[in-house]
Amino acid sequence: MFLLNGESRHLVDVSDRGFQYGDGLFETLEVLQGKALFLDRHLQRLTDGCQRLLLPPPDWQLLQQEAQQLISNTEHGVLKIIITRGVGGRGYRQPDAIVPTRLLSLHPYPQYPSALQSQGIVTRFCDQLLSINPSLAGIKHLNRLEQVLARAEWRDEAIQEGLMRDSNGHLIEGTMSNLFMVKNAVLYTPALTQSGIAGIVRQLVLEFAEQISLPVSIQSLNKDQLLQADEVFVTNSVIGIWPVKQIAEQFFQVGAWTQRLQTLLNQARLSEVENHD
Amino acid sequence: MFLLNGESRHLVDVSDRGFQYGDGLFETLEVLQGKALFLDRHLQRLTDGCQRLLLPPPDWQLLQQEAQQLISNTEHGVLKIIITRGVGGRGYRQPDAIVPTRLLSLHPYPQYPSALQSQGIVTRFCDQLLSINPSLAGIKHLNRLEQVLARAEWRDEAIQEGLMRDSNGHLIEGTMSNLFMVKNAVLYTPALTQSGIAGIVRQLVLEFAEQISLPVSIQSLNKDQLLQADEVFVTNSVIGIWPVKQIAEQFFQVGAWTQRLQTLLNQARLSEVENHD
Repeated sequence: MFLLNGESRHLVDVSDRGFQYGDGLFETLEVLQGKALFLDRHLQRLTDGCQRLLLPPPDWQLLQQEAQQLISNTEHGVLKIIITRGVGGRGYRQPDAIVPTRLLSLHPYPQYPSALQSQGIVTRFCDQLLSINPSLAGIKHLNRLEQVLARAEWRDEAIQEGLMRDSNGHLIEGTMSNLFMVKNAVLYTPALTQSGIAGIVRQLVLEFAEQISLPVSIQSLNKDQLLQADEVFVTNSVIGIWPVKQIAEQFFQVGAWTQRLQTLLNQARLSEVENHD
Repeated sequence: MFLLNGESRHLVDVSDRGFQYGDGLFETLEVLQGKALFLDRHLQRLTDGCQRLLLPPPDWQLLQQEAQQLISNTEHGVLKIIITRGVGGRGYRQPDAIVPTRLLSLHPYPQYPSALQSQGIVTRFCDQLLSINPSLAGIKHLNRLEQVLARAEWRDEAIQEGLMRDSNGHLIEGTMSNLFMVKNAVLYTPALTQSGIAGIVRQLVLEFAEQISLPVSIQSLNKDQLLQADEVFVTNSVIGIWPVKQIAEQFFQVGAWTQRLQTLLNQARLSEVENHD
């Protein structure tokens, strides 16, 4: 199901700058019992992204109404929101009058085995590097060829995620997730000021860590540090928190900190459902 | 005028990976007297790009037929070709069966004053940096936010182009053009193995330089080196060769080497028109 600028359509103008240049942003949200979880946080990130890309922000009230219209009867699903710079002429110069395109789409919730949550996932290191560019780091923009090429490196269904490094060799994130590790009761996650996407669940995890007095260090991480971790997990808005049980040839236990953070995330998800506006 | 997968349509599926992720490639060609100039070279770059992005190459014969159909009555114009990975589901993983989307569009030739060719253009340095990523360098892919943000830095109509550096401070290219300079009868242009787009006219200029025994050095260039040049010019398939008469506060003469290369390019353009298949 699609809502394109408020209409039930699934075709967009080929002159849309989203199609021509990847000139836009997106968000992916979990839908549970007719509610888009952590919607305010996703709209805040979209607002930040619009500022960074010099895009006029959409009408948030209208966007929320449309989202509600699309998902109100959905028990469990995925809502994707795309905002682009709209239709423009040939050439990089943005139109004098920008009329952003907004696309909302509703997708089935992926049928992940529950063991991925409880027993963890298998990951690998990707060869494809993330490029460094502070002006695009952190936001969820539509220029995603690096992730596409990284995800194309493996077809083995047993591997759920690939871990990506930047051109300095620093670990940054998974192809579709943020990366965390626990070592000696400290939570580590890479800084995302040079590359990567600052995930909503990543931010929640950092807040939960503070609640449970788990010290946090946001810093550069390399491969060796990661492989010596006590616990490793990845996060995104659809999967929540997946423990990592294997990176390449190395095995990890599902740790107690990871489980505590999973519990806190599940509580926050349910409280989102209960707190209807 | 648009030809989308061979049909006269201008609407594309919102699930097209071009729209979702900028997952594709493009080419921009000058059309003169019903002929797309240097079409073989553009199709070769598109072939290289398909290999790099793991895209099945389109049917080149069909693409050429469609291009001819679109442009046969055009005296002077611009042909744009977009190839994407086609429609796919949510997520970076590419579909098992890829059916690429091909879009051909015909645009009016821009009404550039002829003085830009003869007397040169005014340029500026952009703050927006080009990120470094060898896996995407050289090809003309659809992830173009860096160019969009660079082009958004100025609105002054007197400035025709902005020059971009990579995150190491090396000059790479213009927002829409390749960059050359001549110093002491040597032609310099930046290497494009780490970032940038390897333009078709850039390649022609390198071949012309060999013909006229102008030594070429493909190397890193910084701002100071550029500002000490004897001649500076930029190239692309629509503008051809534009001498640069001003970079920021510094002025340049339109030089004899630049003019010789312009003459050779014009001869090659005309010979393209004459050599109908």
